[in-house]
Amino acid sequence: MRGLRKIKPYTPGEQPKRKRMIKINTNENAYLPSPKVLAALKAFDGNDLRLYSSLTNDTLISALAENLKVPASKITTGNGSDDVLALAFQSFFNTDDPIIFPDLTYGFYSVWCDLFRIPYQEVPLNQAFEFDFAAIPEKVGGIVLANPNAPTGIFKSLSEIERLLEKYSDVVVIVDEAYIAFGGKSAVPLLEKYDNLYITRTFSKDAALAGLRVGYGLGNEKLTSVIQAVKNAYNPYAVDLIAEALATAAVKDVAYYQQINQEIANVRDWFIDELAALGFSTLASQTNFVLTTHQNASAQELFEGLKAKDIYVRFFPNQERLRDFLRISIGKKEEMQEVLRVLQEILTR
Amino acid sequence: MRGLRKIKPYTPGEQPKRKRMIKINTNENAYLPSPKVLAALKAFDGNDLRLYSSLTNDTLISALAENLKVPASKITTGNGSDDVLALAFQSFFNTDDPIIFPDLTYGFYSVWCDLFRIPYQEVPLNQAFEFDFAAIPEKVGGIVLANPNAPTGIFKSLSEIERLLEKYSDVVVIVDEAYIAFGGKSAVPLLEKYDNLYITRTFSKDAALAGLRVGYGLGNEKLTSVIQAVKNAYNPYAVDLIAEALATAAVKDVAYYQQINQEIANVRDWFIDELAALGFSTLASQTNFVLTTHQNASAQELFEGLKAKDIYVRFFPNQERLRDFLRISIGKKEEMQEVLRVLQEILTR
Repeated sequence: MRGLRKIKPYTPGEQPKRKRMIKINTNENAYLPSPKVLAALKAFDGNDLRLYSSLTNDTLISALAENLKVPASKITTGNGSDDVLALAFQSFFNTDDPIIFPDLTYGFYSVWCDLFRIPYQEVPLNQAFEFDFAAIPEKVGGIVLANPNAPTGIFKSLSEIERLLEKYSDVVVIVDEAYIAFGGKSAVPLLEKYDNLYITRTFSKDAALAGLRVGYGLGNEKLTSVIQAVKNAYNPYAVDLIAEALATAAVKDVAYYQQINQEIANVRDWFIDELAALGFSTLASQTNFVLTTHQNASAQELFEGLKAKDIYVRFFPNQERLRDFLRISIGKKEEMQEVLRVLQEILTR
Repeated sequence: MRGLRKIKPYTPGEQPKRKRMIKINTNENAYLPSPKVLAALKAFDGNDLRLYSSLTNDTLISALAENLKVPASKITTGNGSDDVLALAFQSFFNTDDPIIFPDLTYGFYSVWCDLFRIPYQEVPLNQAFEFDFAAIPEKVGGIVLANPNAPTGIFKSLSEIERLLEKYSDVVVIVDEAYIAFGGKSAVPLLEKYDNLYITRTFSKDAALAGLRVGYGLGNEKLTSVIQAVKNAYNPYAVDLIAEALATAAVKDVAYYQQINQEIANVRDWFIDELAALGFSTLASQTNFVLTTHQNASAQELFEGLKAKDIYVRFFPNQERLRDFLRISIGKKEEMQEVLRVLQEILTR
């Protein structure tokens, strides 16, 4: 057969379905979706599914516009931020110059570059696992930056991002804010000032709606018109009717989500201290996960010891710089207490 | 700004939201989703949305496998058949030879070719609006065929499709069966015999679930492994948890859907006869829509006259060969009676 594509896909974390497991391997929210989301689900009339969903997702976009204080004309919705990011890569990265992202970041960036045949160059994070912007070449086709970064959890200040946007003003800089609600400071206020800034967001982490698949992008009207044309050349109805209704309900319940996400940040900070007491070194995280390493125990040993107790964390055996680390999502406090108990047990064997 | 993509997107039909309108412009099902789909929606626990949806959609795929008598290893799910088709184009059409489809067919095929930079050649439908396979060049990169075709409604026999698959055995032939449930005969039994056949299906038309966004593709294990790698390099979780649960319920209610879709076919055949009595010529349709033209009245005049009465049909003013035609989706019998009444009124003005 001629014409078949060869591509190496993204490797997601396992999605085990076991009773009583502690699943802290794919950065889902520790808490349940807002009761208002559940109410919107109950109120949804399934008969409405007969007709196509909205092309423009006006209901969701109005709610986001009000919440973020950003005009609706700057917002584009998608089937998760994976969809929005994939559209953004196709929309904004069409030069022969490489686009730039760190060697340790969301694994999908390089996969999309391969899929869309976009040249790219990975800039190694420095010894402290930080993205040193001075290491970015002069001539680039664009820059992608998860802020806070995954799997490190480290947040870059907005003043540094501003300098980046100024220096590379002729190409698009994508700031992936999947984890922004857990402590970092959003670049959204910079949208007014920088027309090369594109921000992506998801409902999967901070809105506790990973199973719903909704995300969105934010950029000035020019970038928005480009990405919307690409979206409408790919799969315009990607956010279905139920997803739009439930995501809208989530956007409107700011108070609930602020509370649970603050609680997650509190548990994270406490957990990092407790890990230190067990001899772990943990990167400073502004996300709902931590990247941690132990001086005496291998990540493999810890990963397998936890798994034997039905505790699932993320281990990266195939990435050299991460081989000694575990990425642990922040669950509820009682779950993290159990994790600490099992870790101590493994370490004192 | 450098690197921005220029693309001409697909133009979907209008999605007006008016009370008491007759919306027969985007080929949605005339009937409501199965009561079992509504029951599945009621039974769905919104708290489950906290975790990611299934990467593999095993529940839905098992139901489809049983229903279609096709092994699960030949099935790939997506966010509507638009998503599946877009993935298939990226997966199977990677040669320098043009892929082939008719000049009058689903408008998205050329849009995807432009988006993914796939060379293509449109073969004009003959005078009878049929796709003459003899007009296809010898050397092609692949073939795409909606069967029945849209917007003509015309069905090609499986024996002709078999000859096509045999002649072009070294490239993939995609058969888009979005409208197969309204009278045509599915190519699914040919999957065992032809390893270059790829079939796509959607829940939007025959399952009355346009607002849910679920579709799937069927092909042998080799083609399936290629498209699944591309899917997992784009947006692996595209079918969300609720969509999977509801689509599964739909697959299982074969009896309900056979009944409503047979009723639609009956109304269609009656409607074509009634149109003839008003002086219309209508193509032989095996779908839930008809393409029709009147000797004395322009399509524009009829389109506007219907719209003035809140009846929305599809009119293609920018496509030369279709300028004199209207595409009318088949609604319930009482709706189509009203359409005939208004048409008669316009014609006797």
